[in-house]
Amino acid sequence: MSNKKSAISPTREENFPEWYQQVVKAADIAENSPVRGCMVIKPWGYGIWELLQRELDNRIKASGVENAYFPLFIPLSFLEKEAAHVDGFAKECAVVTHHRLELKDGKLVPTGELEEPLIVRPTSETIIGDSFSKWVKSYRDLPLRINQWANVVRWELRPRLFLRTAEFLWQEGHTVHADKADAVWQVEDALRIYKEVIEDVLAIPVIIGEKSAGERFPGAVNTYSLEAMMQDKKALQAGTSHYLGTNFANASNIKFLDDAGNLQYAHTTSWGVSTRLIGALIMSHSDDDGLRVPPKVAPKHAVILPVIPKPELATEVNSYADKIEQILLKTNYAGNPLRAQVDRRDLRGGEKNWQWIKKGIPLRIEAGPRDIASNNVMLLRRDSDEKIQVSLDQLAAVVEKSLNEIQSGYFNQAKDFLNKNIITDIKSADEFKQFFASDSSSGFVQAPWSEDEVETEKIITPLKVTIRCLPMNVALKQGAKCVITGK
Amino acid sequence: MSNKKSAISPTREENFPEWYQQVVKAADIAENSPVRGCMVIKPWGYGIWELLQRELDNRIKASGVENAYFPLFIPLSFLEKEAAHVDGFAKECAVVTHHRLELKDGKLVPTGELEEPLIVRPTSETIIGDSFSKWVKSYRDLPLRINQWANVVRWELRPRLFLRTAEFLWQEGHTVHADKADAVWQVEDALRIYKEVIEDVLAIPVIIGEKSAGERFPGAVNTYSLEAMMQDKKALQAGTSHYLGTNFANASNIKFLDDAGNLQYAHTTSWGVSTRLIGALIMSHSDDDGLRVPPKVAPKHAVILPVIPKPELATEVNSYADKIEQILLKTNYAGNPLRAQVDRRDLRGGEKNWQWIKKGIPLRIEAGPRDIASNNVMLLRRDSDEKIQVSLDQLAAVVEKSLNEIQSGYFNQAKDFLNKNIITDIKSADEFKQFFASDSSSGFVQAPWSEDEVETEKIITPLKVTIRCLPMNVALKQGAKCVITGK
Repeated sequence: MSNKKSAISPTREENFPEWYQQVVKAADIAENSPVRGCMVIKPWGYGIWELLQRELDNRIKASGVENAYFPLFIPLSFLEKEAAHVDGFAKECAVVTHHRLELKDGKLVPTGELEEPLIVRPTSETIIGDSFSKWVKSYRDLPLRINQWANVVRWELRPRLFLRTAEFLWQEGHTVHADKADAVWQVEDALRIYKEVIEDVLAIPVIIGEKSAGERFPGAVNTYSLEAMMQDKKALQAGTSHYLGTNFANASNIKFLDDAGNLQYAHTTSWGVSTRLIGALIMSHSDDDGLRVPPKVAPKHAVILPVIPKPELATEVNSYADKIEQILLKTNYAGNPLRAQVDRRDLRGGEKNWQWIKKGIPLRIEAGPRDIASNNVMLLRRDSDEKIQVSLDQLAAVVEKSLNEIQSGYFNQAKDFLNKNIITDIKSADEFKQFFASDSSSGFVQAPWSEDEVETEKIITPLKVTIRCLPMNVALKQGAKCVITGK
Repeated sequence: MSNKKSAISPTREENFPEWYQQVVKAADIAENSPVRGCMVIKPWGYGIWELLQRELDNRIKASGVENAYFPLFIPLSFLEKEAAHVDGFAKECAVVTHHRLELKDGKLVPTGELEEPLIVRPTSETIIGDSFSKWVKSYRDLPLRINQWANVVRWELRPRLFLRTAEFLWQEGHTVHADKADAVWQVEDALRIYKEVIEDVLAIPVIIGEKSAGERFPGAVNTYSLEAMMQDKKALQAGTSHYLGTNFANASNIKFLDDAGNLQYAHTTSWGVSTRLIGALIMSHSDDDGLRVPPKVAPKHAVILPVIPKPELATEVNSYADKIEQILLKTNYAGNPLRAQVDRRDLRGGEKNWQWIKKGIPLRIEAGPRDIASNNVMLLRRDSDEKIQVSLDQLAAVVEKSLNEIQSGYFNQAKDFLNKNIITDIKSADEFKQFFASDSSSGFVQAPWSEDEVETEKIITPLKVTIRCLPMNVALKQGAKCVITGK
């Protein structure tokens, strides 16, 4: 499609943030709701989330973590227990103060004031910690490893669909361990699962690293994140995993008798990913024609579009389309039955075709009278301009192969882009400033850093640059000097 | 187990409501939270919910309904739009009035008062209706059939785990149709799905019928319910499906251009089932030893209990247990791989055994040195006192057969109980009063009724009897007279 006019206006080049909003709209995956900051996730978007959820959930369960469900509401006093946590989370949140409405002069007014206000959970460390304090008594109860799928609310002043919304959906893992080593293993195991899903399923390459002190989760000892590069070369935090030390165990009173009979505070972790990953998916793979969904999370892998030039041919073409659907539904892709359907809507062919392009479905299959005559179909791939004639005999094999190629192609394209835009040869604060001050250059700078946050802020804030993470698996060279301070 | 002392005290006979609470506790499926009326669903309970959810979701999707997600919060003014709905739902609900907390003298206080308070959704007709009013323009957009999995909040003054909790989990289907016939089809299709899942999966027989005017969903034209009989012979409403006429379309302004170009109000439906079904499952199947879970929703079908009389035999017994686990994991039941695990916890055998009995796992498999010698295992079924020796060769087949028998056995037992306790020979108000006044008699009375709610209330309220539904598929005989009024 690259030679034709693009379906999305503005293009990525012209205005990336606005392009993003237009892709969300054109793909019909979500929209703003009348409640400020909250979104409505429409079926095509929710379908992506469900598939992503399934992939995550299977891996979380396979790792031995069990799902449970905790209350939506948190008593105000719980938030006060962990000092850093108060500071980080008790700012913008939804506060429930009444439990009753009464009709007065045709208007509903809140009554029944609560003795203690309730907070709609912004994250659940404190309310889950309360349960854990009752469940954990002895070292025999450890490790305790729980995951929750839930909605959370953080009042956002500048909401953006999927990326920053007041209410969002996520999973939050919460675990309790007898010692630091076991907790750190869990923190890393969560990162392993996230990397696998984000790279192998969402086709987004990530860099894993530790957050600097200023960017830590409120109350955490260490915070690790998975950072992805969007097509505007900006970073997006795709997931986090926190080692909380004994801070939350102290706040929530999670203690256990060790095997020597001593009462000890436990070590806890928490880790989460959210519907924000759908925002990452959009900004990683989509183009100026709309969304492109990696096959593993595509609600439909293929749509069959009957081409009916004359009404009297409708019956024949439709039954040929059904035949194609039957072939596809019997085909497997990535261990699951293929998700395919005939689009029978009474719409012009061109309009239908463009709707599916904008939705980013991996494959479109056109079938008309000429195809019936030759026992073929026309296969159109979302990742390329290719239009391939395929015989019915070959269809299942070609579809499976194409989906594999699309899935790995999206990943490779994003990986090449990331690699090309990691700058490793910046040596000093001057070079750093020069690079980011230029309109044409942006990307990730990978360089030695002394963690001097005060000095760093002075340089990065005016440039609108952020510190993302201290990458794991990157060794400092002998004699390496801080890019900011020269130390 | 019936001849031994029971694990649950009090027994069903002694105090049914208290027995219920003790079963929930003994099976470790849920507990009260520090937030009044909210519950914590523990892994074994949440596992049941996830399996039930999967069974419902598959059927809802197969029927052509798509999942989506709408905001947790509803602007106060939305609730005011539908008069009957205001009355029914705008009573006990959680009201968000502030969006900020500030630390003052070490205490968090709500600030940032909202211009318009928000209600935490008690049900989503009004907020989903707002979206639908934008999505529906022409008859081509209809039917629009959406389902949502969500948490909802109704402030409960007398909460009971699973049965009545302030926050609960559910699915709510919301659909829009061009005419009444299509909407009524949908209302019935939801009932079909519910009946299938409740009877075939949860093994609970239900009676489907229409609610009388006084029991309708606030704002509905017709409400249908599925009613189940618990072991105390009381009714439990297991699910509802509502035909809303054009009432909510009027309130939310859901209009469409019909094929003649006329603007019309649409016909809408809504239908839901919730975590309450877990309460129904407990009260239908459990006994005085604890929970009994129908195999189709059992988080584990079988647990393998290694019997280790001397520590030096541990290695041999544990590897035999692993071998059994491998056999079971390769076995299928009801189209899915069997869910089995070895319980290796360092606990006395008797205690382990009782924990699993109380959790209601369908099968327990004991394996010790004598079993190794003979290449056998000991199979114990939760539905009977049976203890069967099975050879490893036969294990997969016997396990599958046993699970089938347990699943159908629970249903048949509940069905017999229901049939035995439907009283059809009560002809007059006097007989009706006499029956329910007696301490020893209770159950469902099926009788002709004139729908005179005023007269009926006078009789049933002192008896603590409730009108459940007007059963579908039950024809009135010629000359039938109302059991209450004689009309």
